[in-house]
Amino acid sequence: MNAIEDLIRLLKHLPGMGEKSASRLAYHLIKTDDSFNKALGGAIMQIKDRIHPCPVCGCYTEEEICGYCSSPDRDRTLLCVVEEPQDVLSIASSGAYNGLFHVLGGAIDPLSGVGPDALSFPMLIKRIDEGTFKEVIIATNPTEEGDTTALYIRHILKDKEGITLTRLASGLPIGGDLGYADKLTLARSMRGRVRL
Amino acid sequence: MNAIEDLIRLLKHLPGMGEKSASRLAYHLIKTDDSFNKALGGAIMQIKDRIHPCPVCGCYTEEEICGYCSSPDRDRTLLCVVEEPQDVLSIASSGAYNGLFHVLGGAIDPLSGVGPDALSFPMLIKRIDEGTFKEVIIATNPTEEGDTTALYIRHILKDKEGITLTRLASGLPIGGDLGYADKLTLARSMRGRVRL
Repeated sequence: MNAIEDLIRLLKHLPGMGEKSASRLAYHLIKTDDSFNKALGGAIMQIKDRIHPCPVCGCYTEEEICGYCSSPDRDRTLLCVVEEPQDVLSIASSGAYNGLFHVLGGAIDPLSGVGPDALSFPMLIKRIDEGTFKEVIIATNPTEEGDTTALYIRHILKDKEGITLTRLASGLPIGGDLGYADKLTLARSMRGRVRL
Repeated sequence: MNAIEDLIRLLKHLPGMGEKSASRLAYHLIKTDDSFNKALGGAIMQIKDRIHPCPVCGCYTEEEICGYCSSPDRDRTLLCVVEEPQDVLSIASSGAYNGLFHVLGGAIDPLSGVGPDALSFPMLIKRIDEGTFKEVIIATNPTEEGDTTALYIRHILKDKEGITLTRLASGLPIGGDLGYADKLTLARSMRGRVRL
């Protein structure tokens, strides 16, 4: 049973995968169509060869420069600053934003030893100095680390003239239920209440 | 972002994997060490080439005949009948059983169109006729389908002399809590109560 045990051992390294779920997944793969296994296995093997961070914005791409940075159709007066590459896809697919992106590579988190030096702030300043941006939208997560990072960005950009700094609104998720909202979310949605 | 979207699309075919978890897993694989991706991808691609069902018992093996069937150390008077190949590993690793196995390939389930013809009953009868078994332990799942299959096995083996037929005990799981047990489990553990 060595091949199965090997596969289960590897699957167990994936996030959220315990002994039982890894075993269930391995036996699922044994029963599934072999062409699917060949496709999935190949995609996993090649993913890091096929993509790399865009040298301009830091999101993942297969091209030399990513599709957002090279697109002639996007609004080059808007720059959205996010923590991780996957946040770019989330915001782009929301349909509510058509500007450019900047990936920091994380958030400032002193307790985990992540200081400003670990993130791509120098490139952010360079892009703002050399670009045509009028508004910088901070889209870091609504967490303590994301808040700290937002404050830090406000600090390093405070002398830039002609740049409006904004942040994504926080509050109750659409379709959510007041009864399930945590206190911090409720408090923030109360402070940020809008006139009808 | 084609390579990432390809990977997410493939991952979404795995059981219990939705859009969000597939995306989370894909971005995890991008951040992880490439040698891990090569090992995992290779293991998935090769799994169906490396293993096949044992022609005697039906469990998965890399050898011609599986390690259970070919072992000189296992008790050849005991035969444990299970539904699926993964059940063999579960029972073998419980440490409470040292006999041989027989994998049916499922359970009788008329509603899903699985009749006795779809399962390996002829091979089971042949092995009992030609083997040295004294006890056949039915280890089908404690479900309606597993119960039906157990009754069917009792029916087809009723004329075999010198064979004791048993079934795994059902009841409360060890470490479980009465408050969380469902009614059927409670009822069965009540009917099967044992004298202290």
